Amino acid sequence: MARSADVPDLVSRARNGEPRAVARLISMVEDSSPQLREVAATLAPHVGRAHIVGLTGAPGVGKSTTTSALVAAYRAAGKRVGVLAVDPSSPFSGGALLGDRIRMQEHALDPDVFIRSMASRGHLGGLAWSTPQALRVLDGAGCDVILVETVGVGQSEVEVIGVADTVVVLLAPGMGDGIQAAKAGILEIGDVFAVNKADRDGADATARELRHMIGLGERLAGAWRPPVLKMVAARGEGIDELVAAIEKHRLWAIESGAGLVRRERRAAEEIEALAVEAVRRRLVADPAVLGGLAADVAAGLEDPYQAADRLLAAGGV
Amino acid sequence: MARSADVPDLVSRARNGEPRAVARLISMVEDSSPQLREVAATLAPHVGRAHIVGLTGAPGVGKSTTTSALVAAYRAAGKRVGVLAVDPSSPFSGGALLGDRIRMQEHALDPDVFIRSMASRGHLGGLAWSTPQALRVLDGAGCDVILVETVGVGQSEVEVIGVADTVVVLLAPGMGDGIQAAKAGILEIGDVFAVNKADRDGADATARELRHMIGLGERLAGAWRPPVLKMVAARGEGIDELVAAIEKHRLWAIESGAGLVRRERRAAEEIEALAVEAVRRRLVADPAVLGGLAADVAAGLEDPYQAADRLLAAGGV
Repeated sequence: MARSADVPDLVSRARNGEPRAVARLISMVEDSSPQLREVAATLAPHVGRAHIVGLTGAPGVGKSTTTSALVAAYRAAGKRVGVLAVDPSSPFSGGALLGDRIRMQEHALDPDVFIRSMASRGHLGGLAWSTPQALRVLDGAGCDVILVETVGVGQSEVEVIGVADTVVVLLAPGMGDGIQAAKAGILEIGDVFAVNKADRDGADATARELRHMIGLGERLAGAWRPPVLKMVAARGEGIDELVAAIEKHRLWAIESGAGLVRRERRAAEEIEALAVEAVRRRLVADPAVLGGLAADVAAGLEDPYQAADRLLAAGGV
Repeated sequence: MARSADVPDLVSRARNGEPRAVARLISMVEDSSPQLREVAATLAPHVGRAHIVGLTGAPGVGKSTTTSALVAAYRAAGKRVGVLAVDPSSPFSGGALLGDRIRMQEHALDPDVFIRSMASRGHLGGLAWSTPQALRVLDGAGCDVILVETVGVGQSEVEVIGVADTVVVLLAPGMGDGIQAAKAGILEIGDVFAVNKADRDGADATARELRHMIGLGERLAGAWRPPVLKMVAARGEGIDELVAAIEKHRLWAIESGAGLVRRERRAAEEIEALAVEAVRRRLVADPAVLGGLAADVAAGLEDPYQAADRLLAAGGV
């Protein structure tokens, strides 16, 4: 474990924009430092200012390129930017692959850009509690905008990204996107859709199909209508329009009250995840108990519900 | 909720191969029927015989086609087959999209094939407890082989599939598979790799890259070396070889003891998931409590850890 840190000092330095202090705080969050609670308590009064933008889409649609182009655009507007890249990693190794982070190197030396990759560390729900904590650090560090990028569009990504203030869903022509998008439930969570690589064949068809599918859903009067943009992120084409669409959604969310509803939902999920995780740790604290129950269930001597009852009883829950 | 059922009768009919009894039992599992525990207890003595084969891979690699071809092969060998298609669904609608299930229709009238799609029903970890219960039903219903197919290769899919007795990872040429596979951690969980659509350009290169990446991992003496096959599932080419590789792995797992280790790990994860889910339900039972805490956290009046403590206290945990 890391040595004990002076948390108020770290938070104060992070708020002054010291990248190392920000990095240290996120590491404490990721590694479940014993000082995690102190970090959360010290940050609490300073969070809630950042606009959290989630980016998701299938592998190959250009998420990293788009994130990088958005960072450049926000920096040009003088904003402090945080980037959280959430990588589903192996359940066994716990390591995140940072290959495509290389594209972000152009921003690595900018003191007003904080970039961090997070792995899921091997259990379902891991990201559900660590991602919000890392967002809290970046928010407290004075970021105006935080871009959260996920690899893939699985259920866990959808849940991690679904609570961003604005969710941008990226697609690319000719990937059978329509049905895949629907499968992963991203049609319902997208606030802004962008068809990237729009210089390729089929971009218009993908945009059209998408508009059609979005149009199928019922919307109440005054509800947000997700725009469908086209862009070529690698050349910076359409990025200004994407930034404008994100800003328009941000203002709509504030005005309509929908933004507060979403932030409270995000807080509720965060609280629930922290509470459940605390209980989970208590339940698996003694591997011998769980191991013995598992052997009984695998041998057919006991059903898993009875075993779960015994696990709860053993944990005093 | 569904009407109360005669569980022992249902289980007995399922064991006789009545598709409607099997379907009813899985529905009870999916809908968290109050009789769930009775179902589990009644099934317990009858499970543990089926060989559970997980299939995973990125969208578009041909999972449904391969599953269908495997079903045909196992049926030709006289085996009873279960298919569980796990669809990550929207966190909001809770519905599973069954579009590509249509390809399975050719087996729909075969009384010795049970096919079921499962959605994740809107919360992280939902599949972690419902999938094993559904497997238990199919196992108890006398299936010799159960094919579990996931959409996508996100963290949740990896965890759901990672505890199958044999994990088959499908890839296709030219999808940037190598790096994507590594990202999702499927290199570590694959027992058999199959490059589908091997009549396309790049199949040899994909197989080669895969063999190289697999070779990079250290393996102990006597450890299983995952084979890399090539096939064209849509034409049935290579399916016999895939069945043979799965069988070889099954026998190795029994002989080496690795199979029991994995089944006990699966049981442990199942027990943990059931226990955690029981606690989670208790914690969110009163939405007003969580809602009030969430409003405080969103307003910056409280940090999420304090709120989680209060949630646990309110739930008597």
